[in-house]
Amino acid sequence: MSEPAANPPPPPAEPAPEGGEDAASTSKKAAKKAEAKAKKEAEKARRAAERAAATAAATSAAETEDLAKDNYGPKEGQLAADAIEINLKTLGEEHVGKTVELRAWIQNTRVQSAKMVFVELREEGNWAIQGIVAANKEGTVSRQMVKWVSSINSESYLLVEATVQKPLEPVVACRVSHYELHITKCYILAAAPAGLGMTLAAANKAVTNFSDEQAAVEEGVDKLSIAPASEPAGVPAASMLTHLDNIVMHKRAPVAQAISDIRMEVKELFRSYLRSQGFKEFEPPCLIGAASEGGANVFRLPYFSTEAFLAQSPQFYKQYEIAGGRKRVFCVGPVFRAENSNTPRHMTEFTGLDLEMEIKKSYHEVIDMLEGVLLHIFRGLKERCAEEIELVRSVYPSEEFLVPESGKEVRLTFAEGQKLLREEGPEEYRNVSDHEDMSTPQEKALGALIRKKYGTDFYVLDKFPEEARPFYAKEDPSNPSLTNAYDFFMRDQEILSGGQRINDPEELEARMRKKGVDPKSPGLKEYVDVFRQAGVPAHGGGGIGLDRVVAFYLNLPSVHLAAFYPRTPKRLAP
Amino acid sequence: MSEPAANPPPPPAEPAPEGGEDAASTSKKAAKKAEAKAKKEAEKARRAAERAAATAAATSAAETEDLAKDNYGPKEGQLAADAIEINLKTLGEEHVGKTVELRAWIQNTRVQSAKMVFVELREEGNWAIQGIVAANKEGTVSRQMVKWVSSINSESYLLVEATVQKPLEPVVACRVSHYELHITKCYILAAAPAGLGMTLAAANKAVTNFSDEQAAVEEGVDKLSIAPASEPAGVPAASMLTHLDNIVMHKRAPVAQAISDIRMEVKELFRSYLRSQGFKEFEPPCLIGAASEGGANVFRLPYFSTEAFLAQSPQFYKQYEIAGGRKRVFCVGPVFRAENSNTPRHMTEFTGLDLEMEIKKSYHEVIDMLEGVLLHIFRGLKERCAEEIELVRSVYPSEEFLVPESGKEVRLTFAEGQKLLREEGPEEYRNVSDHEDMSTPQEKALGALIRKKYGTDFYVLDKFPEEARPFYAKEDPSNPSLTNAYDFFMRDQEILSGGQRINDPEELEARMRKKGVDPKSPGLKEYVDVFRQAGVPAHGGGGIGLDRVVAFYLNLPSVHLAAFYPRTPKRLAP
Repeated sequence: MSEPAANPPPPPAEPAPEGGEDAASTSKKAAKKAEAKAKKEAEKARRAAERAAATAAATSAAETEDLAKDNYGPKEGQLAADAIEINLKTLGEEHVGKTVELRAWIQNTRVQSAKMVFVELREEGNWAIQGIVAANKEGTVSRQMVKWVSSINSESYLLVEATVQKPLEPVVACRVSHYELHITKCYILAAAPAGLGMTLAAANKAVTNFSDEQAAVEEGVDKLSIAPASEPAGVPAASMLTHLDNIVMHKRAPVAQAISDIRMEVKELFRSYLRSQGFKEFEPPCLIGAASEGGANVFRLPYFSTEAFLAQSPQFYKQYEIAGGRKRVFCVGPVFRAENSNTPRHMTEFTGLDLEMEIKKSYHEVIDMLEGVLLHIFRGLKERCAEEIELVRSVYPSEEFLVPESGKEVRLTFAEGQKLLREEGPEEYRNVSDHEDMSTPQEKALGALIRKKYGTDFYVLDKFPEEARPFYAKEDPSNPSLTNAYDFFMRDQEILSGGQRINDPEELEARMRKKGVDPKSPGLKEYVDVFRQAGVPAHGGGGIGLDRVVAFYLNLPSVHLAAFYPRTPKRLAP
Repeated sequence: MSEPAANPPPPPAEPAPEGGEDAASTSKKAAKKAEAKAKKEAEKARRAAERAAATAAATSAAETEDLAKDNYGPKEGQLAADAIEINLKTLGEEHVGKTVELRAWIQNTRVQSAKMVFVELREEGNWAIQGIVAANKEGTVSRQMVKWVSSINSESYLLVEATVQKPLEPVVACRVSHYELHITKCYILAAAPAGLGMTLAAANKAVTNFSDEQAAVEEGVDKLSIAPASEPAGVPAASMLTHLDNIVMHKRAPVAQAISDIRMEVKELFRSYLRSQGFKEFEPPCLIGAASEGGANVFRLPYFSTEAFLAQSPQFYKQYEIAGGRKRVFCVGPVFRAENSNTPRHMTEFTGLDLEMEIKKSYHEVIDMLEGVLLHIFRGLKERCAEEIELVRSVYPSEEFLVPESGKEVRLTFAEGQKLLREEGPEEYRNVSDHEDMSTPQEKALGALIRKKYGTDFYVLDKFPEEARPFYAKEDPSNPSLTNAYDFFMRDQEILSGGQRINDPEELEARMRKKGVDPKSPGLKEYVDVFRQAGVPAHGGGGIGLDRVVAFYLNLPSVHLAAFYPRTPKRLAP
């Protein structure tokens, strides 16, 4: 079809590529400039699209009768009765030559001539297929229809009738590369605006500017290792704020959907593994009557004639379940921290994966279980989410997450970790003490040493000093300056804190007093009394931060990217 | 062993049975009296146990050397190296004659003679086995040991070494009836107090007094059909407040654990069914920036320099996921209502099971899906939780929950329901209107008619009048006085509300104005604008109240019994 175009085709709704940009040069200034440019481009594109639409409307009226006029339009029309409903994921040889129907977003338009236009149609995730609208002699697909389809705004939702064909060459631009759709009818089910607030291409780029957090990052106070962004030619990246302000396009980006899929698989793997190990799920409350785990970082709210607090963890409730006759429990749900920290790894609401279990002989039974469930998650992700991980890596490059071989799990005591730091770590850690908690930079330095020495991104530090653990932590019976408590790490950063808990009320009160906590204070008295109601088995557990597991596994530059609707001190919307 | 007892055995820690009480006569007065009596009994038992313990301590010193002295005691001791760890659920023929170890709660003690005592040992749920401590000639089990075991307080947690034997006759009192444990060693891992705040027998009885709610129940304002309590001879029931004040014993009762198991299976069945139907899980936030779904019943809290609200439903967020390119989503999590209603079916925090999906041709696709998942849950419970359901029924008697046969699901339009009420319902409903929402008593009357007519406890009312539905409900295109919205019912009570949502921003604004809602108000403007960001497919869904599904399926007298930690306007603890 070499016939020249009768009318100049309207420009595609998305701005055209404009040549590459060096990834390494993306400084703060460049990012700002790029964003301003993106906005300008979007505005320009919007105006062009509007002009094109107006022209199209004016000329179409003047043209000859359109035999295809019922086969396209801005409202749903009638498809062939025998059209087979398809979805792109399961499209196969059996559909070739058949009339099919598809509901999908139009993500790109490429005009070939006045008689032919190529479109990309996308379903959920990155499942896209090439469609062709080509005017035919019979007039069931007309030039007017071609022109009209060319003018549809990107990200409109369409109903399409088509014949499935095999392209001469695989379509590299689309995930479905071995089939294409020869479109016979096309209707808009829901129109997108002429100019999108953020294009899909921009939405699918790495976020490098986390605005509110930027200051903190630059100060290096709480800096996450920011993965270098991959930069498809000419599409500038958008800031996290732009993403949140354009939540629809943010979520439509394949990278965002892949991260969500991975996150949900972590939850599912956590639950299914624990169920198979005899754990019972339960639900702790969010609203609680006392700020029992420390008052500083707790949200408080008026509650009828009294006051309520939002739970900072399900700690006490997990223990109540064990006291209440369960041998093993887990829960998955939101927890809240009223901490005014504007960094890439803080949120005010996040999801906890928690477990608690009876200890029979040693609290290492709990470490075994926690290692077991996390390794199950890591291995499960690799198996079930290989494509999603690859997709995320194409936007946020990362090294594979290193997991120890079965039987070669890495557990150091806190003291061993400090010794390693002193002996093999950077100069400034030559004098670190065995009785002071580690700082974040210390953790990172130790993580690097461990990766070098043991080849793993996942390891455990056990036997934390008494000073570093809360009042409910059980002291090591053979050395009361230590506790039977541990942290788990992924890529140098803590993702889990846990330990054996005190199950004897007298011992609990004594340790509370030693830690300067009043065992008679509101909330704590009720907590201690639970262990007086009846005999409570020895028990321990841990709490895993879901957002952190996802972000660190994928080496994302912020936990905010791992959350569905990140909550920060400055942001409660959408 | 007919030898008479050398010393009078200490009385068992739990009050002895005292003859039956007629279930039907349990009025409010009787319940109060019974509770007072129970307290007295508990106190009496406690004192008796203390006396017995004192006597035992005094006499044992005077006795001869105890060859068994290392085989029992208040601290953990050494078991045989070859002792096999068992749990009661999997105890089998292969264990007979073997030395085993078991950790369990002692729930009952029956002294046979100075040389022999029977104990009941319980693991999680209602898995219990009979143990026997009998003094032997070798002295490895001594009279002193028998006496000491007899004095252990009920609900202490024990470590036991024993030989598994087959009893002469099945032990009817225990779930494990074909094996018994001949105990050779016995240590207390965690001691219970001499007097329990609530005995296991009392905890396992039906709660009939919901105190705070009692007034409302008596006024009949919001009365749930209270199942008649089954009354094991002589054990008085405790009020809901007593249960909550004794949370450990409340949770140890097999009935509470069975209800929890059923609840968690509902969640699991919900998730697994929807995953199999291509749904993606997501997590909506609890903290939101605007009281977008109505300000009256929303909790508000100070949030750094601004204000936050607790989500009353995930409605908007489910829709954002659809707008964001998901075809089908679900979520499971807490929702909050600041409603000062003290009734057996209100809570301030409860769990929602929510879904939202694209509509291709008709919103009946959504009804099909919701019916599908609920029927899957009902059938799954019958299959997977038959024992738990039976156990709950032994405490809270109920008729089997009637489910329609496949293909015979009952769907009436709201108007058909009202017609049925007018024509076949009680006198007072002769004039009910098709354009006014139903009251709770009306719902109950209609439910009774439907059960009689169709033999089902599960049905759908569709096409609710426009007046009765929120601003986001889609009007019926063929009759705008109706909506494409529905409620689902279980045993005459609503458990689900849902419908098709408006996906066009102009239509949405128009309906908001019609309903007197300002589309520019905080929260709502952002909501409407989401549909302007890009083309959003037609969609619908529904929200299921998990607590209600459990309570109504089992016909429990209050949703509070279905919750793990019920939150009411007057109760935030434990």
